[in-house]
Amino acid sequence: MDISARIDTALCHSIEAAAGPACPPRLSEAIQYAVFPGGHRIRPRLCLAVANAHVGSDAYVVDAAMSSIELLHCASLVHDDMPCFDNAATRRGKPAVHVAFGEPLALLCGDALIVLAFQTIARAAITAPQRASNLLRIVSDGVGAPNGIVAGQGWECEQEAPLKEYQRAKTGVLFAAATMAGAAAAGVDHEPWGILGQRIGEAYQVADDLLDRFGDPDVIGKPVGQDVVNDRPNAVSAMGEKGATDYLRSRIEEVVDSVPDCPGKLKLRALIHEEASQILDAALRRRAAA
Amino acid sequence: MDISARIDTALCHSIEAAAGPACPPRLSEAIQYAVFPGGHRIRPRLCLAVANAHVGSDAYVVDAAMSSIELLHCASLVHDDMPCFDNAATRRGKPAVHVAFGEPLALLCGDALIVLAFQTIARAAITAPQRASNLLRIVSDGVGAPNGIVAGQGWECEQEAPLKEYQRAKTGVLFAAATMAGAAAAGVDHEPWGILGQRIGEAYQVADDLLDRFGDPDVIGKPVGQDVVNDRPNAVSAMGEKGATDYLRSRIEEVVDSVPDCPGKLKLRALIHEEASQILDAALRRRAAA
Repeated sequence: MDISARIDTALCHSIEAAAGPACPPRLSEAIQYAVFPGGHRIRPRLCLAVANAHVGSDAYVVDAAMSSIELLHCASLVHDDMPCFDNAATRRGKPAVHVAFGEPLALLCGDALIVLAFQTIARAAITAPQRASNLLRIVSDGVGAPNGIVAGQGWECEQEAPLKEYQRAKTGVLFAAATMAGAAAAGVDHEPWGILGQRIGEAYQVADDLLDRFGDPDVIGKPVGQDVVNDRPNAVSAMGEKGATDYLRSRIEEVVDSVPDCPGKLKLRALIHEEASQILDAALRRRAAA
Repeated sequence: MDISARIDTALCHSIEAAAGPACPPRLSEAIQYAVFPGGHRIRPRLCLAVANAHVGSDAYVVDAAMSSIELLHCASLVHDDMPCFDNAATRRGKPAVHVAFGEPLALLCGDALIVLAFQTIARAAITAPQRASNLLRIVSDGVGAPNGIVAGQGWECEQEAPLKEYQRAKTGVLFAAATMAGAAAAGVDHEPWGILGQRIGEAYQVADDLLDRFGDPDVIGKPVGQDVVNDRPNAVSAMGEKGATDYLRSRIEEVVDSVPDCPGKLKLRALIHEEASQILDAALRRRAAA
């Protein structure tokens, strides 16, 4: 099975648990809509790559790791797009969940996705309690307060937000969770893997900030200029266009050097280099076209 | 330490993890505001009562069980009160979170509380992975889709909702999670404990429906008449006033008979009888005063 198919199968399996006649049908539809079709699935891909760089990874825990992280990412998008937050009408090239299903269901859909992530880990814990227990700690810390996505979004509600802490919490920590979750699913010490994910996340956030300023909404599937409209911290505002681009380049150098020792280190470095170059190219290409 | 103090200490411990300088200060305040001061804390009290009816309960897992369930209950109140949902301006006798902190922080606060519940279980899993793994499954199923609170709220977004399924999901399942979590924390088979919580939850929901229709908002700390305003399924609308009261009485009979065998069975029956009678009295007293 190729990587995309494996990720989507794991996600299908997770959200199937929320489907069926016992679930309010519109909620079930909204959950499906929020998860499929996906974006780049960059976080679960990263998680899988780390797991595959080891021997002895538990396929069931790997699936739970990938799926829980992507579900939490999807949840953050659904809530982030709501009128009381970013008020973004489109996402992944189609109407945002609150536009398609209304605000009450968008609110519940996000909540349900958060819980589904933990229901998924709970199922993995039946056969692998120790690995799932590590996964639970990694994933919950990566999404909650004080360090995770929710805290990152919380900085958007402050008069002043420290840019680094904001970006780290809003993006970096879930990427760090993805790399650490891959290691935990492989049964190895996950701590050394955090820095790699953190750095990929920092690079990704700067690329995202460049796309928000200079990207094509038809290509990226969501409105641009949102950071200015919503007065959000943004690397382009903070460092200027050239500063942000230079910073992104220097981050990518660091990323590849951050891969810890593991049986599949060379292959993983090559894969991450390729992925990071694509991020850079995408950000620069959109910028040139703007 | 008395029961209320123990519950509040466990909750303090859970939300402390989200406090500190790394957390956006207003988010941290909103979390504190949503959890303290509490309501009756009926779910964690029930959880503790079940754990205490056994020998060999793990105090740390019991604290995690009580705390996670109450945090999820608080999260559901915060999101439920939001303008796009019930649009209720007061809760527990003070402005609702979205009134006090604004909608974006209310949204994030609910999300953070959900995740904090799972961060709490994650910490318990470090020392007791097997019990925490059962707890994780019980709690996540009790709050998510297709059977938990989120699904219960999801029925409110449907044209038609089956009253029993709606009440079961909206209220019963988290009560069932509370009794089962108490058993899981005590290290015994939790399955037989579900029916007791389910029945207490059903009784509680009918009492809550009576209070929504006939209660005094100053006494119950939230607006009344919300079910009619929001066209929600309600036992009084479905069965009439007398029907709902009779149903509540018959439920309470069943509740006490549902206590499974355990070392502290007699004491637990007595305690539940007292608690259930208080629920009944409260619902009838408010009704008489209306």
